[in-house]
Amino acid sequence: MQIAVLTFDGFNELDSFIASAILNRLRDKGWQAHITTPTPEVTSMNGVVVQGQKPLEFATDADAVLIGSGIRTREIAEDPNLLSRIQLDPKRQLIGAQCSGTLLLAKLGLIGDLPACTDLTTKPWVIDAGVTVLDAPFIAHGNVATAGGCLASQYLAAWLIARGAGLADAEAAMHYVAPVGEKETYVQRAISVVKPYLPVSAETA
Amino acid sequence: MQIAVLTFDGFNELDSFIASAILNRLRDKGWQAHITTPTPEVTSMNGVVVQGQKPLEFATDADAVLIGSGIRTREIAEDPNLLSRIQLDPKRQLIGAQCSGTLLLAKLGLIGDLPACTDLTTKPWVIDAGVTVLDAPFIAHGNVATAGGCLASQYLAAWLIARGAGLADAEAAMHYVAPVGEKETYVQRAISVVKPYLPVSAETA
Repeated sequence: MQIAVLTFDGFNELDSFIASAILNRLRDKGWQAHITTPTPEVTSMNGVVVQGQKPLEFATDADAVLIGSGIRTREIAEDPNLLSRIQLDPKRQLIGAQCSGTLLLAKLGLIGDLPACTDLTTKPWVIDAGVTVLDAPFIAHGNVATAGGCLASQYLAAWLIARGAGLADAEAAMHYVAPVGEKETYVQRAISVVKPYLPVSAETA
Repeated sequence: MQIAVLTFDGFNELDSFIASAILNRLRDKGWQAHITTPTPEVTSMNGVVVQGQKPLEFATDADAVLIGSGIRTREIAEDPNLLSRIQLDPKRQLIGAQCSGTLLLAKLGLIGDLPACTDLTTKPWVIDAGVTVLDAPFIAHGNVATAGGCLASQYLAAWLIARGAGLADAEAAMHYVAPVGEKETYVQRAISVVKPYLPVSAETA
């Protein structure tokens, strides 16, 4: 499973790195999450300069794509040249968006009339884009998921692992990253959040 | 408050970036958390190349220091040249260590006979270094704190904010980053984890 974690200038480190680090727990099974950027380097909202691992166009070929969040998403959402470089297909790809990434997902026409999740800051802009926003950390409709609140990125990762590998692998990845002494709590909550949105085959995998 | 987040080659993205991103929520109050590295660039355990924001020697002058974790910590713990560049003083600095960072804290002589937290993988090495390891996500003794399990880095950040600014600021930072729909749960848990280790003045700040 090759995963593009779309990461733009002004990105929120929590949103790109929590998801990618959890997904990379499955490296032994051939999974790789790549920080995927429109330029060779991007600078985070806190001034951290990171080299991209894949160019933006990699998203077209990836098995799964997560759209990260950041403080410049509104500019990106108004940049047709940048948006045109993101060619996604929910029929053959698992797609997730985190916080303001939901705004880009809406601009890409991948939310339609369905309710979605985003963070409290981005919420009014997503509503302006015609989307119904839920007071919930996570929702998925088929192959397209959205999450709201930086630390909800763990749920995007857990959903993607449950969909692409199985529930047991999602539980194992969450168990590894959870705080010591709170591991069962974290695993159970993550599974309870994503399980309603899994097809029956994934639930029993 | 100037904070050094020590980040070495092979670093775990969760451990350095969850803490730094939460701490940087207080930027308006003059707080800055800096990715602090022994070389101009470091490469994460998942191949992400990041430019350091401060050199390792910045840790000596910082108001607070968090020691991140990674897959090469055992090598670093055996490298006297690298260790000698990390000059910390718990009398005037708040100091925290995350997961395998606890091993470096022990090697720096800053744990002594007190029990500490670390992750399950590092646990045997920390025990070998003479430290009693707790089955808990977080503990602090005065100005020195340790945390175990990647996502426990939120507790290091919350403790540092509570110590340096006050409980209300710790609550606000945790509220911002928590998943939508779970914000009260996250805030209450973080505060309940760190509050037993705050002096009375910080509890009422």
